[in-house]
Amino acid sequence: MERRFTEDELIAHFFAPIAGKEGLGLEDDAALLSLGAAGDLVVTTDALVAGVHFFEEDAPGLIAKKALRVNLSDLAAKAAAPLGFLLALALPRDWTNDWLAAFAAGLGEDARDFACPLIGGDTVRTPGPLTVSITALGRAPPGRFVFRAGARPGDLVYVSGTIGDAAFGLAARRGAGVMARLGADARDYLLERYLLPRPRVQLIGALRDYASAAIDVSDGLAGDLAKMMRASKVSARIELARIPLSIAARQAIAIDPALADVAATGGDDYEILCSVPRAAASALEAAAREAGVPLTRIGETTAGEGLPLFLDEDENPRVFNKLSFSHF
Amino acid sequence: MERRFTEDELIAHFFAPIAGKEGLGLEDDAALLSLGAAGDLVVTTDALVAGVHFFEEDAPGLIAKKALRVNLSDLAAKAAAPLGFLLALALPRDWTNDWLAAFAAGLGEDARDFACPLIGGDTVRTPGPLTVSITALGRAPPGRFVFRAGARPGDLVYVSGTIGDAAFGLAARRGAGVMARLGADARDYLLERYLLPRPRVQLIGALRDYASAAIDVSDGLAGDLAKMMRASKVSARIELARIPLSIAARQAIAIDPALADVAATGGDDYEILCSVPRAAASALEAAAREAGVPLTRIGETTAGEGLPLFLDEDENPRVFNKLSFSHF
Repeated sequence: MERRFTEDELIAHFFAPIAGKEGLGLEDDAALLSLGAAGDLVVTTDALVAGVHFFEEDAPGLIAKKALRVNLSDLAAKAAAPLGFLLALALPRDWTNDWLAAFAAGLGEDARDFACPLIGGDTVRTPGPLTVSITALGRAPPGRFVFRAGARPGDLVYVSGTIGDAAFGLAARRGAGVMARLGADARDYLLERYLLPRPRVQLIGALRDYASAAIDVSDGLAGDLAKMMRASKVSARIELARIPLSIAARQAIAIDPALADVAATGGDDYEILCSVPRAAASALEAAAREAGVPLTRIGETTAGEGLPLFLDEDENPRVFNKLSFSHF
Repeated sequence: MERRFTEDELIAHFFAPIAGKEGLGLEDDAALLSLGAAGDLVVTTDALVAGVHFFEEDAPGLIAKKALRVNLSDLAAKAAAPLGFLLALALPRDWTNDWLAAFAAGLGEDARDFACPLIGGDTVRTPGPLTVSITALGRAPPGRFVFRAGARPGDLVYVSGTIGDAAFGLAARRGAGVMARLGADARDYLLERYLLPRPRVQLIGALRDYASAAIDVSDGLAGDLAKMMRASKVSARIELARIPLSIAARQAIAIDPALADVAATGGDDYEILCSVPRAAASALEAAAREAGVPLTRIGETTAGEGLPLFLDEDENPRVFNKLSFSHF
């Protein structure tokens, strides 16, 4: 059989050519529709499939929250405040009223907590697995959308929170031996980070005011950094030792050092990676501190268009087998 | 097992309570976000599943077009001009580059023809059937959205195009004996009406200027009329003989008179049903004529909240076994 396109290839070959300019070449986290003085409308969609993006036996309220939160993370990376969302829900044959009640309850909690109301949807049946497609709408002041493509050589590179927890949580969810050797607290922490992303909506103001470019880290830090650099036509030097890790992640890596690569390339972090001009770096740091979101400088952008360099403590480049995790 | 909710029930029980006011109680064709002087943003989403909403062996370009057009029909019913759409595409295990090329080509043709560009999306794999979720955005001038709930007693009721063709086309697609007795031209016409809806975007101006309420007829004329009347807190008297039928549909009904009920209650018409104050009726008719869209007066709204009456030529009410077709 002919080789099939990868996800990036099929988007570039089939969908980018039919996209409007509002789609930003289908290379950003979200679409951007200018509304003139009313600001910029920011729109994003993500679909989650049972058995692919989550386990069908996961708690229905958590499935609902994850489906909404991965979209809110895209909006946050573009510095867009949530306006509302639409839900297209394909229910498998065995759905029950109780399951759906729990799903809707979880969704309602997040809709309230993130001030992002449900505004529409469609419910259909499927002979296949539960499929949850959410489209989220947000708004940014005119001209204040934060693009992936805005990084300039010499900018500093920051990432929010900690990296790799969700990938380790997925390993724990799958019963990986290493994770079984962690304490229950560490394992539970990693598992929760996998099940329930924390979209960094608190960073919206800081990103809007200071970031030159941003992306949400959903497929792996290394791969998403490469995407942001490629879009910006720059490269980057990242110090591996600076990548922020949780205590639980450090414990796992202490048991199996090979997991350090998993942290840097695993998916589902839903943290924000951004670049900032040096002159604005301390203001960005202060704004993030004010917002209560940890933000760590991990490197800088450089001129040129090669893959970002990840340097170990001896300044030797580390080459990953693959840059990111793909569900596709 | 406990009885599961119907689609309408689960929306009312689980989702309407967590919806924002922009969701219009999840009882209209689309959501409405006011953007102040920039107008009203109108957003709708529909999901189509292989084996449920279309046949998996249907031509990929037609599947793509149908998925977009059912959303454009919702926008048209709200008198909103298309702005763009997002595509969440869940691909089954056996997708090929050729299949996807044809799907994208069909989608691109419609995006161009309806001036509704692709602006974003998500591509995922699924162990289940092909699932195509589209979210379409449109815009209406401030305060000119046409609600389902706007009909007043004594308004006239109109429907565009012809009714029942798609339901007959689906029967033909399934190899129903009656349809096999039609001539090939009639059968092909009905089949095309099923495969390729014609969203009535040309009616947007006429609806915006004159309609008191509108809905797109997607689940069956009788059922969608009942929804519009319920939302408007009125009822209606419809003359069955006035319901517009194509020549092919008349031929099918001549062979099997029971098909008359199927026409009035079958799905996938994607025509526009609207009400209009009597004083504006001739202006609406003229505007539709100007737009080149057939529009037929089929009855009038009445005070009271009972189910709409469908009267035969002797003014006897006709009671349907069910009002609409449900994929759910």
